[in-house]
Amino acid sequence: MDKLYVIKIGGNIIDDGERLSTFLRDFATIKEKKILIHGGGTLATKLAEQLNIPQQVIDGRRITDAETLKIITMVYAGYINKNITALLQSNSCNAIGLSGTDGNLIQAHKRDHKTIDYGFAGDIDKVNNELLIKLLDDDLTPVIAPVTHNKKGQLLNTNADTIAQEIAKSMSNKYAVTLIYCFEKKGILQNAADENSLIPKISQSLYKELKEKKIIHSGMIPKIDNAFAALESGVKKVMIGKADELSRLIYGSSGTSIANE
Amino acid sequence: MDKLYVIKIGGNIIDDGERLSTFLRDFATIKEKKILIHGGGTLATKLAEQLNIPQQVIDGRRITDAETLKIITMVYAGYINKNITALLQSNSCNAIGLSGTDGNLIQAHKRDHKTIDYGFAGDIDKVNNELLIKLLDDDLTPVIAPVTHNKKGQLLNTNADTIAQEIAKSMSNKYAVTLIYCFEKKGILQNAADENSLIPKISQSLYKELKEKKIIHSGMIPKIDNAFAALESGVKKVMIGKADELSRLIYGSSGTSIANE
Repeated sequence: MDKLYVIKIGGNIIDDGERLSTFLRDFATIKEKKILIHGGGTLATKLAEQLNIPQQVIDGRRITDAETLKIITMVYAGYINKNITALLQSNSCNAIGLSGTDGNLIQAHKRDHKTIDYGFAGDIDKVNNELLIKLLDDDLTPVIAPVTHNKKGQLLNTNADTIAQEIAKSMSNKYAVTLIYCFEKKGILQNAADENSLIPKISQSLYKELKEKKIIHSGMIPKIDNAFAALESGVKKVMIGKADELSRLIYGSSGTSIANE
Repeated sequence: MDKLYVIKIGGNIIDDGERLSTFLRDFATIKEKKILIHGGGTLATKLAEQLNIPQQVIDGRRITDAETLKIITMVYAGYINKNITALLQSNSCNAIGLSGTDGNLIQAHKRDHKTIDYGFAGDIDKVNNELLIKLLDDDLTPVIAPVTHNKKGQLLNTNADTIAQEIAKSMSNKYAVTLIYCFEKKGILQNAADENSLIPKISQSLYKELKEKKIIHSGMIPKIDNAFAALESGVKKVMIGKADELSRLIYGSSGTSIANE
């Protein structure tokens, strides 16, 4: 099986032009097949402020009304996606920027929730892995924005961590997939304030223990739940670590590895 | 040779949701291979106004400063491109929205002009027709936003009419290409105020005459120059006509046909 790296880059890095450039330069040097999924950063929030569109967030999820969806589509699928693609092209990486509607890449449905109306937030139904395989076979590197669609003409705002996980899972029949979540910290830390307290490996039992001790909490929980779900669906390896250390993350000498046992 | 339709849809239609939907429904029914190139409409101008970014236009060309490029990338490559793609997907057309940086589709350079600095305006160097051929072979329908790149990490704003012409030309070795410019009028009119004064066919000699009589002027001149240039480069047929009459344009029963003789 050929190797495939599915790499998610988070918002804090996207907001920092210099770190993003360095990250993309490192990403471009990966010789194996690769897919990049990017988040949104604070640009969308800033634009909403400038346009006087109030933003509502519940449990870390943005409530996506029609005006917010427009902003997200402009910023994520337009500005960020095309700038990342252009930077990769300048680094001799033949990147192709896509959203979930392109080639029906990611079909989703509007989130159905008992009590909260999340607006145009999309939960994933299906990843078109055949399209991704074709693009990879043509030596293209997909760069994916967290905007999906419902195949009925409606765009939807979808969590980029979840997209990364679903893509990694859908590609694991054909490739030996390593899923890497890149963010601003070295990985999962024993003490959030101490970069030297990295936990190099988290098993199911250690995860349970760390949750009980509240060492792992809030936004990190869905990320790690996603990671274990990916492993259970055939993804070979999941890493969480620092965007600035991408090469070391790939070779396993940095970051936190999530492992079933 | 297989037939290929390269169709440009102009700004006025994009601004009108209902007409755009009708146009896209008609476009989706075209059985032959097809590529859609879209302009920008007034959305970018409106957004620039809301954000207090002054816009400068010289001879119908927008001066693209850094802030304006950001807006164009958001609106053209993001909002418009992804909405058109989602609407085509809802009409069972497997559309894939792209900008010139995606897969290095359209490489351009910053316009070099003796007296005017157009800012981040791009003049086309090369269309990656191999990528388009691959996508068409996979039954995908490219939907192209008028944003290109210089392969050095810089996005550029590029005229959509010119993109349509360059794509039509680059594909004419492999396909029998019909290039169709769709806008809000029935075609080239003898009298701009009278929709019944359509000129069904314009040859080089009639074009010269119509220019001398000032019947054809201003923005229409580069469009028709583009059309003749396309014919000289192997494009089989060029039509200019009304977006609402796309099916009739395709079957030659509407619009103005541009013909060398």
